[in-house]
Amino acid sequence: MAVYTPVGAAELRRFLADYDLGEPLALVPIAEGVENSNFRLETTLGRFIVTIYEKRVDPADLPFFLGLMMHLAERGLPCPLPVRNREGAMLGRLAGKPAAIVSFLDGKSPRRIAPRHCGAVGAALASLHLAGRGFALHRANALGLEGWRGLVAATRARADEVAPGLSETITSELAALERSWPHDLPAGVIHADLFPDNVFFEGERVSGLIDFYFACDDLLAYDVAICLNAWCFEGDGALNVTKARALLTGYGSRRPLAAAELEALPILARGAALRFLLTRLYDWLNRVPGALVKPKDPLEYLAKLRFHQGVASASAYGIA
Amino acid sequence: MAVYTPVGAAELRRFLADYDLGEPLALVPIAEGVENSNFRLETTLGRFIVTIYEKRVDPADLPFFLGLMMHLAERGLPCPLPVRNREGAMLGRLAGKPAAIVSFLDGKSPRRIAPRHCGAVGAALASLHLAGRGFALHRANALGLEGWRGLVAATRARADEVAPGLSETITSELAALERSWPHDLPAGVIHADLFPDNVFFEGERVSGLIDFYFACDDLLAYDVAICLNAWCFEGDGALNVTKARALLTGYGSRRPLAAAELEALPILARGAALRFLLTRLYDWLNRVPGALVKPKDPLEYLAKLRFHQGVASASAYGIA
Repeated sequence: MAVYTPVGAAELRRFLADYDLGEPLALVPIAEGVENSNFRLETTLGRFIVTIYEKRVDPADLPFFLGLMMHLAERGLPCPLPVRNREGAMLGRLAGKPAAIVSFLDGKSPRRIAPRHCGAVGAALASLHLAGRGFALHRANALGLEGWRGLVAATRARADEVAPGLSETITSELAALERSWPHDLPAGVIHADLFPDNVFFEGERVSGLIDFYFACDDLLAYDVAICLNAWCFEGDGALNVTKARALLTGYGSRRPLAAAELEALPILARGAALRFLLTRLYDWLNRVPGALVKPKDPLEYLAKLRFHQGVASASAYGIA
Repeated sequence: MAVYTPVGAAELRRFLADYDLGEPLALVPIAEGVENSNFRLETTLGRFIVTIYEKRVDPADLPFFLGLMMHLAERGLPCPLPVRNREGAMLGRLAGKPAAIVSFLDGKSPRRIAPRHCGAVGAALASLHLAGRGFALHRANALGLEGWRGLVAATRARADEVAPGLSETITSELAALERSWPHDLPAGVIHADLFPDNVFFEGERVSGLIDFYFACDDLLAYDVAICLNAWCFEGDGALNVTKARALLTGYGSRRPLAAAELEALPILARGAALRFLLTRLYDWLNRVPGALVKPKDPLEYLAKLRFHQGVASASAYGIA
């Protein structure tokens, strides 16, 4: 359960008074998501999602996130379309916090990921990268190399509480990535968090891409590496090469990866693994006893990092 | 069947090359609609509608129509969202004609109209009027009083071929409306053609408002009168007062009609009846033998006109 901010009927009415969405029928908290408070809003005009932005989101970033969703939706990507209020603004205030309304998307996250899901999500990610071209706003990746340095500094003293030797692992991995991180690959808008719970399917078809609150400018192939980690490993920590091949082939069908991007994929995948290892480790070490949100297991990403450390070339991911 | 322009696979691929919509899977002609050529497009990214604009639409009006759909969709109205191409344009060319891609909307037009549909469409129309505020572009109503004059001039010589006395009826009705047409009522963006085949429902809920190619600036209550004629008469030509009350109450629940608007409703309804009587009469007199599109019966609207001519006040429409 991840709803942080409760909303009363009177508050909701005040908030909706700035919009032309008809009369509210229901406001149902959504359990998914850990960064913001989300609600399913039903009005006489339709279904929408209301998001209240909690502390973890910098209000200065909201024009980027909302503007990007509008840019992508206007280019045919199945992502939420922010609803403008009477003054044309995409951002309002609800329960004393910044809040927005976006369109509701049909579909469900896959419960059991099959290779066909990986192929579809690869293609959708490529479409996202293509549709993101020309977006006017920019946002540096707060969880890129620079951010990892800060996270290593903040976690290394207590990292061994989670696994013996973890402090040494993250410190030396950061140093290795600083030496070998590519800087001249194609860059643009990336989603940066396209996990299965952020992708909806209707049958075989991707019907929704959500949660753009980590989106930023970075290397496009790094976004592919994030998806490789999020979609193509099995519960036992092993890479499913069939899924990896499907994801990379699906991506390549819409945006062929350049030779330099393929060559960098193992390093990018190590970086993507370290990024989620570090944020999960930080959350684990700083978890509040009794909190509603269960922190995710950092060691899942330690296993993925170790896998990629042993990879010599992108052929380990099932492609030529 | 109302597809005028056939589209080949190679042409479609050339057209889609300007968009980031994935690979085309199917392009299926849509039988509904008489003004443009419409197709349901399925790509690996989703479902869309492709519209090729035929002769009846002035290309100079397309930025208004497409911009309006975007404005309304961005404000939460369930209307098609135009898809921008790589250059950010909403308008392209297909088969040598102006063409656009818009999002696909779920739902179906009601087969049998019940009062609850009328209530829902009234409320949706009010939402459209409210959401239209602040739209930057303007378009005069080509089928307002001025346009009726032209249509009467173009049809009166042969109108009696359709019904004896019709020429005299349209000429005198035009003169009566010119004397009594209101000019100081609230105005704004109107749909101007919100017939049942342009409204989709999912269950009780309006899930789509389509076909904005008559939209313009005009009196908001005139749009209500158009809907009254389109939704609330039975096959035998009689007004269904229950439906009329539902429509007006549904509208008033979101945008209460001012006293002056209610008072003008019978005149506005006569104008709305004359408008469709005249365009149907024109199409009937100028129909092409063997054409695929069957012209609509002008006399249906003659009966509606006669009904409103006998109405003394808006109380005839079931409201106080």
